[in-house]
Amino acid sequence: MPSISRRGATMPESPIRKLVPFAEAAIKRGIKIIHLNIGQPDIKTPKIALDAVRNNTLEVLAYSRTEGAETYREKIAGYYAKNDIHVAADDIIVTTGGSEALFFSMGTIADTGDEIIIPEPFYANYNGFANETGIKVVPIVSHIEDNFALPPIEEFEKLITPRTKAILICNPGNPTGYLYSKEEIKKLASIVKKHNLFLVADEVYREFTYDNREHYSILQESGLAENAIIVDSVSKRYSMCGARIGYLVSKNKEVIQTALKFGQARLSPPTYAQIASEAALDTPQSYFDDVKKEYEERRNILISELSEIKGAVVARPQGAFYCIVELPIENADTFAKWLLEDFNLDGETVMVAPAAGFYATEGLGTNQIRIAYVLEKEELKRAVHILKEALKVYAN
Amino acid sequence: MPSISRRGATMPESPIRKLVPFAEAAIKRGIKIIHLNIGQPDIKTPKIALDAVRNNTLEVLAYSRTEGAETYREKIAGYYAKNDIHVAADDIIVTTGGSEALFFSMGTIADTGDEIIIPEPFYANYNGFANETGIKVVPIVSHIEDNFALPPIEEFEKLITPRTKAILICNPGNPTGYLYSKEEIKKLASIVKKHNLFLVADEVYREFTYDNREHYSILQESGLAENAIIVDSVSKRYSMCGARIGYLVSKNKEVIQTALKFGQARLSPPTYAQIASEAALDTPQSYFDDVKKEYEERRNILISELSEIKGAVVARPQGAFYCIVELPIENADTFAKWLLEDFNLDGETVMVAPAAGFYATEGLGTNQIRIAYVLEKEELKRAVHILKEALKVYAN
Ligand SMILES: Cc1ncc(COP(=O)(O)O)c(C=O)c1O
Ligand SMILES: Cc1ncc(COP(=O)(O)O)c(C=O)c1O
Repeated sequence: MPSISRRGATMPESPIRKLVPFAEAAIKRGIKIIHLNIGQPDIKTPKIALDAVRNNTLEVLAYSRTEGAETYREKIAGYYAKNDIHVAADDIIVTTGGSEALFFSMGTIADTGDEIIIPEPFYANYNGFANETGIKVVPIVSHIEDNFALPPIEEFEKLITPRTKAILICNPGNPTGYLYSKEEIKKLASIVKKHNLFLVADEVYREFTYDNREHYSILQESGLAENAIIVDSVSKRYSMCGARIGYLVSKNKEVIQTALKFGQARLSPPTYAQIASEAALDTPQSYFDDVKKEYEERRNILISELSEIKGAVVARPQGAFYCIVELPIENADTFAKWLLEDFNLDGETVMVAPAAGFYATEGLGTNQIRIAYVLEKEELKRAVHILKEALKVYAN
Repeated sequence: MPSISRRGATMPESPIRKLVPFAEAAIKRGIKIIHLNIGQPDIKTPKIALDAVRNNTLEVLAYSRTEGAETYREKIAGYYAKNDIHVAADDIIVTTGGSEALFFSMGTIADTGDEIIIPEPFYANYNGFANETGIKVVPIVSHIEDNFALPPIEEFEKLITPRTKAILICNPGNPTGYLYSKEEIKKLASIVKKHNLFLVADEVYREFTYDNREHYSILQESGLAENAIIVDSVSKRYSMCGARIGYLVSKNKEVIQTALKFGQARLSPPTYAQIASEAALDTPQSYFDDVKKEYEERRNILISELSEIKGAVVARPQGAFYCIVELPIENADTFAKWLLEDFNLDGETVMVAPAAGFYATEGLGTNQIRIAYVLEKEELKRAVHILKEALKVYAN
């Protein structure tokens, strides 16, 4: 029997998937599960996007251009301009989800054995794309006590080696909810310029910022054009995760030309999804205002409910729709499994994502969980209530 | 300024893309171009597939399962059963095009520096995926004089090293149109079993076979379950290239579990496209009969017209919709460029794909071109006529 590759053997399993068999078993026993573990919003996709696909008159569902449809890329440039990010259509490659933009970025800037510094905890699939490309993720710890703020510059500089090719940030962060300030982006800009690195910013949650704070993009920072690569996505912005459309944006021509060759190999991004995504750009502002208000209210409820848990440390997210909570437990993996296997409150339990999977440093985050607040407020309240009761039982 | 990776620098450009600027310039000069260079069929997508998307009632365009929607995978298993390929839904991962199935396959079975043997000429993007994963493509020459039949077993065995992980075939072949016989598949089966290799078969053109010949899949070959991986796609079968749906199929559980981890990193294949592709499985047989008849007629016309070109050697495709032609010229690259830059017949010219881009061995195929017969018969005739006249002028 032929054997699989080391690359394949070391591909990380999603920290969310591991619990799925336990969840399925719980459902079989008749337990209702409230999902706090996944970033699939319940928010409706804008009607204008859904209608564009319903009303399409294609007769041949053909490949689109490798870099995405021309009209669509022009409109994306317009979207960025409104957000004070000044790029041309040619600076944008439409990808199959932000996921593919991450993969193209990594492949474009780093070789097997090269290093990318990433503040941890981070979006777990960065590990997956790094593993696919043989890149070494070098974590730099950010702390729940600081709300996961940017680690000090000196800490970055300690980690930079001749093989370091880039710093990758997620802003606002999944799983932290942390929103980097203008000053923090400026600090990062100075490091990457000084050491000739790329700065890749995963800005898929750009739109979701709270407490009247504004997102500051790496492409708003002047002088960073050659270093900056934005990873973006329609998935969360328009609650259309199933479209599978994202963008890679850079003013560095060599980056775009190279990423385009990765694009050519896979031919083109999906055509229907581009129709939906192009139409989504005409979504009225009121939609976003409503969605943002909804998420902010959910966050407020979540934070205030969680902070009533004795011994819990709760980070205060200022963006995205995730929250890291440190619980008065030993091991969140065991606890999350126990919640599914051995606990229920009137037939209901909750499924959470153990946070260790979002850390690259062994031993960090073991008593933390990530909660996605993509549920209606009443359900969210009930979920935290169940969590609270569960912790009481678990303590004994 | 930070520099891009070696991997990025060595990503091959699509052999088709290179000529695009010359084509664009020709169009600007008012020249009409007949495209013989791309595999984008003109055939209509089955109405049943288009309608399924038009009539969809989704309100939240959510992620699907990583491995593809459950109902869809069940139906795919049914499709294979009808084709005498007996697999379960769990042996199938729905991918974003056959392209992604190729990438997942390579990543699953080989590490950086490992080798995969591929009969050349081959689908050029195999180079792209190999480059992304650091895999070395080891070409084994098949010859136009033999109609691109399988090279002798001894030739394969000469190339096998401790780093060889797989043999990859395309059946029927792009760009050769060659359809492997049952005996040839049996020969391959014996090599891979003897040397403990994987056999990856790109069967995206399975349905397109001519002269009453039948396709024989590697998964029809008994005893090959642990070695065989099929790459498949809806792109050409239903003329829905823009959907971006393909499959990776294997009865080797470790392969499926590993490929699934690659799938988890990118979350899910596109949702709309799965709706279309699931519905496409109900396309009436008459559609396929008509399409196959159409392609076979086109092939016949193409072959008979091309064989009138003095000094040309024409391979006889028995499958897919490509044909390799050796022309009485020195260099097909120069010729293809010349066709766009310096030639026209009554304001029209043709765009062809120089075949060298489909060979890995330097110097092979330099006087060959690939023609895709995805045009209506009259246009195809006119295209060959233009080619003939062009060759007369070019000879002087
Ligand atoms: C931080 C972050 N980046 C990228 C992605 C990838 O999303 P997609 O491929 O759907 O655009 C996600 C999805 O959850 C995410 O949370
Ligand atoms: C031989 C072969 N394999 C795979 C593909 C990939 O097609 P897709 O990603 O559209 O399924 C193609 C497309 O032309 C092809 O010709």
